[in-house]
Amino acid sequence: MPVKVAINGYGTIGKRVADAVELQEDMEIVGVCKRNPTFEVPMAAARDLPFYTTDEEHRALFAEKGWDVEGLLPALLDTADIVVDCTPGKVGATYIPLYQEHGVKVIFQGGEKAHTAPISFNSSANYMEAWGADMVRVVSCNTTGLCRTLFPVYRHIGIEEVLAVLIRRAADPWDSKKGPINAIKPVLKLPTHHGPDLNTVIPDIPIQSMAVAVPTTIMHLHANQVVLKRESTTEEVLDLWERSPRLRMVSGGDGILSTAQAMELAKDLDRSRADLFEIAVWADGVKVEGRKLWYYQAVHQESDVVPENVDCIRSMMEMEPDAETSIATTDATLGIPAPRS
Amino acid sequence: MPVKVAINGYGTIGKRVADAVELQEDMEIVGVCKRNPTFEVPMAAARDLPFYTTDEEHRALFAEKGWDVEGLLPALLDTADIVVDCTPGKVGATYIPLYQEHGVKVIFQGGEKAHTAPISFNSSANYMEAWGADMVRVVSCNTTGLCRTLFPVYRHIGIEEVLAVLIRRAADPWDSKKGPINAIKPVLKLPTHHGPDLNTVIPDIPIQSMAVAVPTTIMHLHANQVVLKRESTTEEVLDLWERSPRLRMVSGGDGILSTAQAMELAKDLDRSRADLFEIAVWADGVKVEGRKLWYYQAVHQESDVVPENVDCIRSMMEMEPDAETSIATTDATLGIPAPRS
Amino acid sequence: MPVKVAINGYGTIGKRVADAVELQEDMEIVGVCKRNPTFEVPMAAARDLPFYTTDEEHRALFAEKGWDVEGLLPALLDTADIVVDCTPGKVGATYIPLYQEHGVKVIFQGGEKAHTAPISFNSSANYMEAWGADMVRVVSCNTTGLCRTLFPVYRHIGIEEVLAVLIRRAADPWDSKKGPINAIKPVLKLPTHHGPDLNTVIPDIPIQSMAVAVPTTIMHLHANQVVLKRESTTEEVLDLWERSPRLRMVSGGDGILSTAQAMELAKDLDRSRADLFEIAVWADGVKVEGRKLWYYQAVHQESDVVPENVDCIRSMMEMEPDAETSIATTDATLGIPAPRS
Amino acid sequence: MPVKVAINGYGTIGKRVADAVELQEDMEIVGVCKRNPTFEVPMAAARDLPFYTTDEEHRALFAEKGWDVEGLLPALLDTADIVVDCTPGKVGATYIPLYQEHGVKVIFQGGEKAHTAPISFNSSANYMEAWGADMVRVVSCNTTGLCRTLFPVYRHIGIEEVLAVLIRRAADPWDSKKGPINAIKPVLKLPTHHGPDLNTVIPDIPIQSMAVAVPTTIMHLHANQVVLKRESTTEEVLDLWERSPRLRMVSGGDGILSTAQAMELAKDLDRSRADLFEIAVWADGVKVEGRKLWYYQAVHQESDVVPENVDCIRSMMEMEPDAETSIATTDATLGIPAPRS
Repeated sequence: MPVKVAINGYGTIGKRVADAVELQEDMEIVGVCKRNPTFEVPMAAARDLPFYTTDEEHRALFAEKGWDVEGLLPALLDTADIVVDCTPGKVGATYIPLYQEHGVKVIFQGGEKAHTAPISFNSSANYMEAWGADMVRVVSCNTTGLCRTLFPVYRHIGIEEVLAVLIRRAADPWDSKKGPINAIKPVLKLPTHHGPDLNTVIPDIPIQSMAVAVPTTIMHLHANQVVLKRESTTEEVLDLWERSPRLRMVSGGDGILSTAQAMELAKDLDRSRADLFEIAVWADGVKVEGRKLWYYQAVHQESDVVPENVDCIRSMMEMEPDAETSIATTDATLGIPAPRS
Repeated sequence: MPVKVAINGYGTIGKRVADAVELQEDMEIVGVCKRNPTFEVPMAAARDLPFYTTDEEHRALFAEKGWDVEGLLPALLDTADIVVDCTPGKVGATYIPLYQEHGVKVIFQGGEKAHTAPISFNSSANYMEAWGADMVRVVSCNTTGLCRTLFPVYRHIGIEEVLAVLIRRAADPWDSKKGPINAIKPVLKLPTHHGPDLNTVIPDIPIQSMAVAVPTTIMHLHANQVVLKRESTTEEVLDLWERSPRLRMVSGGDGILSTAQAMELAKDLDRSRADLFEIAVWADGVKVEGRKLWYYQAVHQESDVVPENVDCIRSMMEMEPDAETSIATTDATLGIPAPRS
Repeated sequence: MPVKVAINGYGTIGKRVADAVELQEDMEIVGVCKRNPTFEVPMAAARDLPFYTTDEEHRALFAEKGWDVEGLLPALLDTADIVVDCTPGKVGATYIPLYQEHGVKVIFQGGEKAHTAPISFNSSANYMEAWGADMVRVVSCNTTGLCRTLFPVYRHIGIEEVLAVLIRRAADPWDSKKGPINAIKPVLKLPTHHGPDLNTVIPDIPIQSMAVAVPTTIMHLHANQVVLKRESTTEEVLDLWERSPRLRMVSGGDGILSTAQAMELAKDLDRSRADLFEIAVWADGVKVEGRKLWYYQAVHQESDVVPENVDCIRSMMEMEPDAETSIATTDATLGIPAPRS
Repeated sequence: MPVKVAINGYGTIGKRVADAVELQEDMEIVGVCKRNPTFEVPMAAARDLPFYTTDEEHRALFAEKGWDVEGLLPALLDTADIVVDCTPGKVGATYIPLYQEHGVKVIFQGGEKAHTAPISFNSSANYMEAWGADMVRVVSCNTTGLCRTLFPVYRHIGIEEVLAVLIRRAADPWDSKKGPINAIKPVLKLPTHHGPDLNTVIPDIPIQSMAVAVPTTIMHLHANQVVLKRESTTEEVLDLWERSPRLRMVSGGDGILSTAQAMELAKDLDRSRADLFEIAVWADGVKVEGRKLWYYQAVHQESDVVPENVDCIRSMMEMEPDAETSIATTDATLGIPAPRS
């Protein structure tokens, strides 16, 4: 019998996790919960997703628009084995008592503070740590991006230290409120939270991070320097990444000159919402010299954590003990090509 | 037997027309032609589109990347009944001798000058004018947008005159070269070409247009004032548009506050490339007072002309004499909801 | 003896009005008041402006940074004949009781609602209406821009009706918080407040306005259509504007292709803060045909109202009965060229 | 007798160097040369700068606009002791034969390749290397920025190695042509030219650089990691920088949250064109831990090299043998505060 999954919060991440879960044979969506009656509601109805809202007050707002809901969040939780919390950053933690009261397992997203859940999760790096757990946090889009490229290097070559400089998109594509419109905004408190956040998943990589927000909406980009434990070559690192999951090597030589063309490539992939679940790494922007590695990668903040959420359900629900198998299953349903074997 | 369609130019419009044609039961793609070997090539291969290039020189560039092509453009044209020219603006006209030599009908896009083809086309406004024709131009994304909202008003209420102010996206989403980054750029020569271009399709609407380019990539937006032939009401105009094809009424009240949320809605529609073929009209931004009508509409410049290209093939190839039937057929395949009847 | 002017609110407008008043022989700044101790404070100190803050709580925040203030707002008001309120939009109105208690005249800015003061002001249009008044509102940057070009046309040719389409910069250059980054945002409620606001100064011009916000910080741009009372010519209108104050004719032919070059021209003018007090009108973007006039104008939202504030003080304090003389005096001090006579 | 300076190229840098030279008692501008007759010409006339153009063909274009020029470039060179070449990148090198023919010394800008001149210049780092030289290149805005902060650290603490990540503004404020509008564009070829360019001035600092272009116009921002020769503290580094010329410590705590407020601060400084000649360094974004230093700095690309050009003239013309004295003289005229002694 498929595992019953509820989604609390039907925004950027919630709607994508709902779609991804629907594609899994071993899972089903029992309902999605959204607070405010906006245009996403009829869209979700078209996808046959049972819609809930948080409370009577908000149910009345739905009614005003002539939109029915199946019921309220507590009822939804009662029908679910696990809830994926996709509420806005730091809101998730406030739901913990409710989730516990209804006896559901819960996955939080990276917008929650690291200590919200005892375990922070990335599919490749620590799949089995979530095995059978009740509360797990899938790390943020940026930390997920760092895990994807750093973990294979850490395991196969060894990492002495990392400096990650994150050039962050300042707002999501659907957001018409947040800026800046014409400025670069540094995160002054050093280290930024990104380095320590990586260590919640892979504790042994000494990492420092700096970050700026810039006026773009489509992707984050990281400029990273890694000091390796031993000498390596560009070829070895590229080969390693081609054999690692959820990375997509792109090339300036093929016309991927920026995040703009990386997202155009995503549109050409014929996926729902034109998502790029993979981290894009510029093959012709990688350089290894002795024990130093430099590279650029781009992160589609709206979607890269989606497959990790699916895998995380499998680990928490004790559905599949092998990380690679879960990853392969998830990726096949989402159209993510398997890494070179 | 399905009509054989070739696509010359596999960029923003070309790739979308190719996909749309593939969805039609009465048409098939015999090949697409692209000059430069960029990342779109393997993407198209994944869609099983036979790939051609323009000449031996470019074939060599493809070979350098290890990419095969089926052959060159002239060979492609020989297998086709009709070619949809999606080459960059003003390049299409230079291909006329080649197209004529190979005896194919041709559809140009709105980037070509109006006089390139004897007929300019919009599905609702003048479908039958293209009947059996050899060369037709599907008008630009902006002109198509103007046709979609103005034609029903023109036919059912009557139009005395129009002022269209076009706030244009300055570059496409995939374009990392063009600006401006932080400026508004007026088109100083008045009238801009948009008003006269509408008159190539609907000659009887007196129209003046002004235009500015602004630093956004996702949609154009029009702020229009229409002087009607008689008094009307907001309700009458809204009702008219709900019964007209390829319009999508959106609402600020439902959270569509800008072009950002309009494109988010498009992503939720689960279409290839997250396109919005319909013109988005803000229902709560329409006002009629006596004989004056004001409204805002947004145009997804990458995709709104795609269904018109499909209809245009049907008219030129004498496949379907009824505009409404062609429109309905096209829209059903593309997932565009039928207008209220 | 010079009139004693206080400035409440030392932000975008406040700092500029303070500087402009300092340049007048018949006025002096007795102090400026700012709530929060940010970097502008030491900058103002370098300009020898006596600094006040609003209350003891904020004085403590200043003290924490080691910055002294002269005193609190009430004390400042007691030394002033008139206060220019440059607090954020809608905050000004809340100060009315305090201003009245201290018996100072007050000028509000256009961010306040029209009814906040009994008189709305533009130097050319209605200078004498503020004569001796106690509370006057200098209209917003956009309305000031509309007054500057429309009033001469209204007086010398006559105006039947106007459609103003305002393409607004979404945030000021110093603002790193507000977006949108990549969207066009229409003001759905029609008419937008801009048309009615013009009528608070010039009641007899029938005007409709539409507006969008776009991702730029430097200037607003208006695309306007005017129906004249009689036929005119482009030459007549251009001549009229060249003889009107605070307009600067610019030309695409000279390389002013957008608001970017308009602000570059402003930098070349060698004014404090690189301001453009004049409304920029594209001479080669003006068209008259029969009784219709179309034109584009750009508004430097940070500074165009500054000279109107100075004139408004003169009228309210009964210092100069002739509008043209006040305008000429103000403009000479600010480096604004006199109109052609 | 003041040194006679010609400026070839009256754009972003040329106009600023012209102004700065005019402010020096020991120099005078004999003329500026500009190819195209754009709006800057009447602006320069207002500043009493003798205007030249390149050749008869362009003189005719000036004449068409009714603008006189003093003469052509060769005549200008004959009246000058030294020419500051501010032509667009890579154009300067093509003028070398002409400059040599007319026996003038020449300063190139950082847009020229490093080998264009035998010496690359920064006022603090290597003032005396330009002594009496005939051809010198003032390094680019970014390299100048790196010199300003790295040189004091290099001299007083010692530098083991540097990673500089440059987040570049993609276009200048006056530029309405260049993008991207909504993308981050990495410089894939590693190391980018910035690191090696620093070494043309200070050869002994091992440096690696990465760079991206982002959709902003106002400033570059650098996120730098420095490995020091010995342990240090945040306090020591801050103290060092406060005693170094042409740095301005700014603070997020005072409201300088991004490049937007940094440029607002520049406007408050009451300088021509609202320039920020100093490199802005975030005092509360500096961190030292053991032998590692991380910091953010922002570079006003339009103006930071202006004072270096003035100093470079003094060194090449053998006017002042002491770097610190030249720097102090230049800075006093430009309103740049002296460093803490």
